Amino acid sequence: MATYKAPLRDMRFVLNEVLDVETISSLPKFGEVTPDLIDAVLEEAAKIAEQVLFPINRSGDEEGCTFENGVVRTPAGFKEAYKTFVEGGWTNLSTDPTYGGQGLPATVGFVVEEMICSANLAFGMYPGLSHGAYEAIRHHANDDLKQAYLPKLGEGTWSGTMCLTEPHCGTDLGMLRTRAEPQADGSYAITGTKIFISAGEHDLTENIIHLVLARLPDAPGGTKGISLFVVPKFLPTAEGKPGKRNGLGCGAIEHKMGIKASSTCVMNFDGAKGWIVGEENKGLNAMFTMMNAARLGVGMQGLGLAETAYQSAVAYAKDRIQGRSLSGPKAPDKPADPIIVHPDVRRMLLTQKSFSEGARALAYWVGMLIDVARHSQDTAKREEADDLLQLLTPVIKAYFTDTGFESANLAVQVHGGHGYIREHGVEQLVRDARITMLYEGANGIQALDLVGRKLPMHGGRPMQKLLALLHGFVAENKGNAAMAEFVGPLEKAVNQMQAAVMWLMQNAMRNHEEAGGAATDFLKVMALTVMAYMWARIAKAALDSNGKNGGEAEFYDAKLATARFFVKRILPQAEAHYSALQSGVEPLMALRAEAF
Amino acid sequence: MATYKAPLRDMRFVLNEVLDVETISSLPKFGEVTPDLIDAVLEEAAKIAEQVLFPINRSGDEEGCTFENGVVRTPAGFKEAYKTFVEGGWTNLSTDPTYGGQGLPATVGFVVEEMICSANLAFGMYPGLSHGAYEAIRHHANDDLKQAYLPKLGEGTWSGTMCLTEPHCGTDLGMLRTRAEPQADGSYAITGTKIFISAGEHDLTENIIHLVLARLPDAPGGTKGISLFVVPKFLPTAEGKPGKRNGLGCGAIEHKMGIKASSTCVMNFDGAKGWIVGEENKGLNAMFTMMNAARLGVGMQGLGLAETAYQSAVAYAKDRIQGRSLSGPKAPDKPADPIIVHPDVRRMLLTQKSFSEGARALAYWVGMLIDVARHSQDTAKREEADDLLQLLTPVIKAYFTDTGFESANLAVQVHGGHGYIREHGVEQLVRDARITMLYEGANGIQALDLVGRKLPMHGGRPMQKLLALLHGFVAENKGNAAMAEFVGPLEKAVNQMQAAVMWLMQNAMRNHEEAGGAATDFLKVMALTVMAYMWARIAKAALDSNGKNGGEAEFYDAKLATARFFVKRILPQAEAHYSALQSGVEPLMALRAEAF
Repeated sequence: MATYKAPLRDMRFVLNEVLDVETISSLPKFGEVTPDLIDAVLEEAAKIAEQVLFPINRSGDEEGCTFENGVVRTPAGFKEAYKTFVEGGWTNLSTDPTYGGQGLPATVGFVVEEMICSANLAFGMYPGLSHGAYEAIRHHANDDLKQAYLPKLGEGTWSGTMCLTEPHCGTDLGMLRTRAEPQADGSYAITGTKIFISAGEHDLTENIIHLVLARLPDAPGGTKGISLFVVPKFLPTAEGKPGKRNGLGCGAIEHKMGIKASSTCVMNFDGAKGWIVGEENKGLNAMFTMMNAARLGVGMQGLGLAETAYQSAVAYAKDRIQGRSLSGPKAPDKPADPIIVHPDVRRMLLTQKSFSEGARALAYWVGMLIDVARHSQDTAKREEADDLLQLLTPVIKAYFTDTGFESANLAVQVHGGHGYIREHGVEQLVRDARITMLYEGANGIQALDLVGRKLPMHGGRPMQKLLALLHGFVAENKGNAAMAEFVGPLEKAVNQMQAAVMWLMQNAMRNHEEAGGAATDFLKVMALTVMAYMWARIAKAALDSNGKNGGEAEFYDAKLATARFFVKRILPQAEAHYSALQSGVEPLMALRAEAF
Repeated sequence: MATYKAPLRDMRFVLNEVLDVETISSLPKFGEVTPDLIDAVLEEAAKIAEQVLFPINRSGDEEGCTFENGVVRTPAGFKEAYKTFVEGGWTNLSTDPTYGGQGLPATVGFVVEEMICSANLAFGMYPGLSHGAYEAIRHHANDDLKQAYLPKLGEGTWSGTMCLTEPHCGTDLGMLRTRAEPQADGSYAITGTKIFISAGEHDLTENIIHLVLARLPDAPGGTKGISLFVVPKFLPTAEGKPGKRNGLGCGAIEHKMGIKASSTCVMNFDGAKGWIVGEENKGLNAMFTMMNAARLGVGMQGLGLAETAYQSAVAYAKDRIQGRSLSGPKAPDKPADPIIVHPDVRRMLLTQKSFSEGARALAYWVGMLIDVARHSQDTAKREEADDLLQLLTPVIKAYFTDTGFESANLAVQVHGGHGYIREHGVEQLVRDARITMLYEGANGIQALDLVGRKLPMHGGRPMQKLLALLHGFVAENKGNAAMAEFVGPLEKAVNQMQAAVMWLMQNAMRNHEEAGGAATDFLKVMALTVMAYMWARIAKAALDSNGKNGGEAEFYDAKLATARFFVKRILPQAEAHYSALQSGVEPLMALRAEAF
């Protein structure tokens, strides 16, 4: 059976011991955000995740959403759970106090998001999409729109969507056709069809606010002619209530492999009233605000699912008895040993564990980078944090979702044939995880974003910053004998990543297709290197803690053992990816399309 | 949309050009099996796969099997398709002429099996399970049982099952509890519950023959006390018709992630009449006859699904337009280029292509080994073929299914968000492929079989034979300049595999758990090396053919280009697995179970 308890001890370890939670409380805005306050928030979040969201995860998958006459119904229990979620203030956790938000740090939001994704990814989509819409309006819309929408989106009585994709265009938004006609009252009439709209229609909120990309009549072609509009399902009245129904509706919901409790809608806009967000033809910039936040959010989905997959696999491996340990019976009173005695089962569990815990450290570090980038008073620190954030966003999206999917598959594998049966709940994790590699930019697109936009950004400054940070850590810890087993492989990995960057600079300049050919392998090289850095930091924290926390020696020893596993068993993959990318694009382009 | 056309040209290339189909026709038993005859069989098989089985693949998944009052109904169209299949003689293709079979080579059976698995895996389970039951009876049962069951199983009017698993034991059959009480008439009364019984109950045949593992009253404990019984649903009359209903029934069917049109049954035996197959307490030997055949069959399922996944991805990549080639527009008349122009899309397609084509060559080579092992008049050749077959069976099962699943996932990835929608039919490939890594021994068990049984078998003779073969090929082709780019990496891979064998010999002797810790990585090292060997053979055949087949130059050039891709982009993975296994079992065993 799928199992989930929020890993609060590990979350606190990352926040307080691996990272420095002071980084946040030293920011003027968060002077009152003490470790105790964060702790209290996490305890409450764990309760709602474990007791409210997780129990309706499998039933939601079995029942799915239903569609009838334009009305979408979420599965049993979702309405009640959403009500509890809103009443607990969870939609407003790290939103802007100007509009009624609680203004907690992004880092805290990340931790809570991880729990929600672990407990019920399909449920998490509804508040998750609102978050993207909120950010787009907050950064780019005028004050009237902010006043009209942010408080409602924040408190969760209204929800939001991102309407980008059309039947003929997803990745290539330059081809989009939805039209926006300026009206005499300053609004626009929006007409077109959007597909794959998560939470496009549902029964959880009294209003749904669509953020829609569309073209003005005189707009230039391609991506330079796209504008962003806010288009509500019900037009708000002067009192801020949902008023007249707008000219839009849900035409169908998709039948999907997973996240079945999340409605994925075809949305038809038929002269619907909308208001522009930001400047004309600059919609893509505003959309990227949403997209970057959403990409990190999807990365967190990968981590969340991986954690549930890991916990479910461990529970089964401790319970299921089958065969005997090769080093002699471990449960002599039983007819067989629990399968966790077998090295190959442990290989799978440790692969999951080393991902979840390393990725958690990386994710919360990125959370802190967001807080620093937004709120530090030190310009240089803000710039550095934002550089690293930009650079790491595609890595987190792609690597966390690839590996989250792998972890879900390992949970099934540990369960053997039982993992394939729906009642056990682990195959759902595989189906749910599968979408995360596809939406918000398929993982190949993330890799192109990394090599094509993020590496060259500001003359390569973000990568220079990252390399300086990693080299600095290596130099600082090289003399520490206890750290040698982690710092040695890290140093090798960092040098290899640097060589891969050099390779790209030399080759992609000459031939742009080289960047495309190397992209995915480069992303993996970078992801594994950054994971090795996080594991070295975890190991360091564990070594520093030893002795002073006598009662928890096993907790810290497990960190060191898992760090060793990562370095010895997972990190070697980076070499294979480095070899592959060095072979260049020629082997990929040699065949004519017809020869496939 | 999922797409499938039997790759007849490639199948012929493998049989006639890469391998030597004469190997088969030179066997006395197959003197009349000419390339033309094989060709005619394959043409007909392609028709039934494409026109009868493939069209009901997705509808079968959507509808699934239904269960009511002990009766299982297959989805619409399955009964008619099965009738056509039986009438075409496909169930009797490579069965024993003594019992009415057509006696065609196993190699031909493999090619046809690949097509069936590509077209409709769930359908293929029904005749596939009969095949295992047939082999167990043919090798181990007495003449009366052979006469009673083989003709019917062969002609497909009756079908078979393998009843091994019980709720508390799958991998560890030593714990099984089903009882067999000897009766006065020489039969046995079988009582117990079996789970995960594929084709345990259905509406395609007039009788179902269960091969059941059970314990005699005085049997020793563990796997040394297991016997095999044949237990028909209906007791055959003297005229060979289904007679009285036997004391067994289907208690439920499982709700699964995929292969929904294949019934997976809980079977209850309540004093059912059965007859022993082979000797008392030697049931496991007889079962292994079934299992080894079944494991190769499951490997073929991985290949079959990979082929459909590849074809579906290619079709979409040529059709879907999105973005422009970085080397300038390739479809200037359209608003965007087909996505096959993008290097990262090609990376995915070539990963699929290099697997399908390399695995096909490997699979058919193994088919020929079966034919040689069974029918050669040369004892040494029989022994060598059987050695290689034993050694390669777990590699084929595990690597083909891991990679088949990967290929199915790549098909989804190439489709982007559309791949996640059920209507497109590619996510079904992922769900269907997922079971192949689990059943007939989960892939970790295959790896343990390889390192724990197959490597030490006959004092290591099979691996010595394989190494001699690979080194021989390298030596023979090393002087050929045109082959250098393939032979060089192959030589490195072979030496690395040999070093991995040495590592295992040295370390697993001292500590048996080292074998368990290294097993999965060793299997991958070996699989990638054998694939590199097949790609070198394919390249050689392509080089030899060039010139003489002027009209097909592109076909042969594509083989060389794909071989290059494999060597440069896939083979480097072997190094990472070699590094991982060399780190030993210690990083896996360091944690106490409680620390997970």
